[in-house]
Amino acid sequence: MRAAIFNGPRSISVGDRPDPVIVEPTDAIVRVVLGCVCGSDLWYFRGETPHAVGSIGHEFIGIVEEVGSAVTGVNTGQLVVAPFVYCDGTCPNCLVGMTAHCRSGGAFGNGTATDGGQGQFVRVPFAGTSLVPVPGAPSGHSIEILRSLLALSDVMCTGHHAAVSARVEPGDTVAVVGDGAVGLSAVLASRRLGATRIIALSRNPSRQKLAKEFGATDIVIERGDDAIAAVLELTDGIGVDAALECVGTGKSMTTALGVSRPGATVGVVGAPHGIKVSFEKNFWRGVGWQGGVAPARAYIPELMRDVLDGVINPGLVFDFETDLDGIQSAYEAMDERRAIKSLIRIGSL
Amino acid sequence: MRAAIFNGPRSISVGDRPDPVIVEPTDAIVRVVLGCVCGSDLWYFRGETPHAVGSIGHEFIGIVEEVGSAVTGVNTGQLVVAPFVYCDGTCPNCLVGMTAHCRSGGAFGNGTATDGGQGQFVRVPFAGTSLVPVPGAPSGHSIEILRSLLALSDVMCTGHHAAVSARVEPGDTVAVVGDGAVGLSAVLASRRLGATRIIALSRNPSRQKLAKEFGATDIVIERGDDAIAAVLELTDGIGVDAALECVGTGKSMTTALGVSRPGATVGVVGAPHGIKVSFEKNFWRGVGWQGGVAPARAYIPELMRDVLDGVINPGLVFDFETDLDGIQSAYEAMDERRAIKSLIRIGSL
Repeated sequence: MRAAIFNGPRSISVGDRPDPVIVEPTDAIVRVVLGCVCGSDLWYFRGETPHAVGSIGHEFIGIVEEVGSAVTGVNTGQLVVAPFVYCDGTCPNCLVGMTAHCRSGGAFGNGTATDGGQGQFVRVPFAGTSLVPVPGAPSGHSIEILRSLLALSDVMCTGHHAAVSARVEPGDTVAVVGDGAVGLSAVLASRRLGATRIIALSRNPSRQKLAKEFGATDIVIERGDDAIAAVLELTDGIGVDAALECVGTGKSMTTALGVSRPGATVGVVGAPHGIKVSFEKNFWRGVGWQGGVAPARAYIPELMRDVLDGVINPGLVFDFETDLDGIQSAYEAMDERRAIKSLIRIGSL
Repeated sequence: MRAAIFNGPRSISVGDRPDPVIVEPTDAIVRVVLGCVCGSDLWYFRGETPHAVGSIGHEFIGIVEEVGSAVTGVNTGQLVVAPFVYCDGTCPNCLVGMTAHCRSGGAFGNGTATDGGQGQFVRVPFAGTSLVPVPGAPSGHSIEILRSLLALSDVMCTGHHAAVSARVEPGDTVAVVGDGAVGLSAVLASRRLGATRIIALSRNPSRQKLAKEFGATDIVIERGDDAIAAVLELTDGIGVDAALECVGTGKSMTTALGVSRPGATVGVVGAPHGIKVSFEKNFWRGVGWQGGVAPARAYIPELMRDVLDGVINPGLVFDFETDLDGIQSAYEAMDERRAIKSLIRIGSL
């Protein structure tokens, strides 16, 4: 098969990889229809975190080509959404809904160990408990719906996890730090959970526009201490009920903590790079944090219903599109912030 | 009036203080019936944190002697519970239930600024929104009920705050780190919120006994890494759904984080002394924290109902009792861990 291959920092090519085959009876083989590039893919693309040479990409939707003898609940020919971490559905962490911490689980495309979603085929371990079938005939869904289903593979679930972790409730005022695809998804998730005021921190006009389309009521263009001052001014000096940290830097975390009112929880989903938090200072302020890697598998069913019903349209985060041969350009567009998120057309329905 | 006076580390005497008078129309004067010593009082007693020379004690119940012209909802002759922080009930933090962060609030007995609860009379600012009247005639309550009402002034609300902050839910498995009065109250609060398994960390037989009476199903006597291993063994290697940190040291926080399963929140109420938390490590584990100073005023009404109905008996934490003249011995008994919590008989009903 043809698949994207990471050769080293800033070098991604398309090459031949062995066609995956069923190894365990719980495996399935999925033929990828759409894949995409994650903000976290940029860390290895930029050489800032190590990544094995080999398969890449952890977000995809596709058609089930073959299932192992022990797979139940998923059938060949079905359109499926893959969560970015596969999971056995039976370990203690899965049973409490923390599927990204599955004890037998793993992420797709993390080097040579598993196939990546930026390729034609993927062997999916624990297919019956990992993949989420999309109701109806695959060909019955519009391209807009397909794009939104692809967003459920990671980014929409991650934004949702920020909002759930921060305990966003109806009527809340929320601040979202980060205007990448996750931050924008967090805006959408906050609106979906009933937040009535959503303050998006962004200085990029096209991202501001999408934030508003997703439900942002206010835009703050300042950064750092000025951003904190701006959010406090917007909230009569009170601060927000929930802050969603969708970047992962020390500066963004400081901003998220700083805009939070006493009793608020910062929902943290940005992969942390150099974050140091003062426990003592935030204890006395009554501001805590919760989050981590999103349990996408646990969230996909409820979010998928809203996608299929047209209630949410998270696929709007894709503003760059190419095919597998254009994979390097897909990374570059995001790296240079020309694109919010790049979609890769890989196969037909 | 006669009141306990802090002279400096390890020196507390009883002396004369001016009788408080109404200063603001929202004030009331309360004649103290019962006061007590808080674990946090030991910090200045031991000279580990600074404290002004003067009035001390922030927990008390008493009889309303006089009310200012603007006080509503509280009348002379009523038995009242005072939360350890008074609050105006109208600021943005009060309106969201974070009464300990009231913008016009303050703690009782923090030096010379306000009267302390370890004295005969207290001027209570914002009396109508701070004091919680106890239904019925003051003389109609048993001494056991009075002791439990006194516990609502701080320690039971603080244990409850740990459990609420950690999102303890029916059926949960909870670990409580700390076997002081707050930790034991956190055990009781967890049982009240429906936790079915409560693991108390304690190596003191009398505290273990009370922990079991309050609802602990398991006792772990180990400390540090051994305690983490013991809790993991008790939970089939999974960890707990919620950990309640009721000490405030780096070691106890490390234990609380270490016993937590992915997705768990550590409820933190121990006044922090030297806690450093690795954000990054806990992010990847999916373990967060929430807590701080308990909004006692917001919690007292619901907890008082359960006290009066005999559902909870938090007054059992008092295992040392004296009168105002014995105040130094009350501190010493707690300092030397001979007592869980010392009660001070100050006035008659």
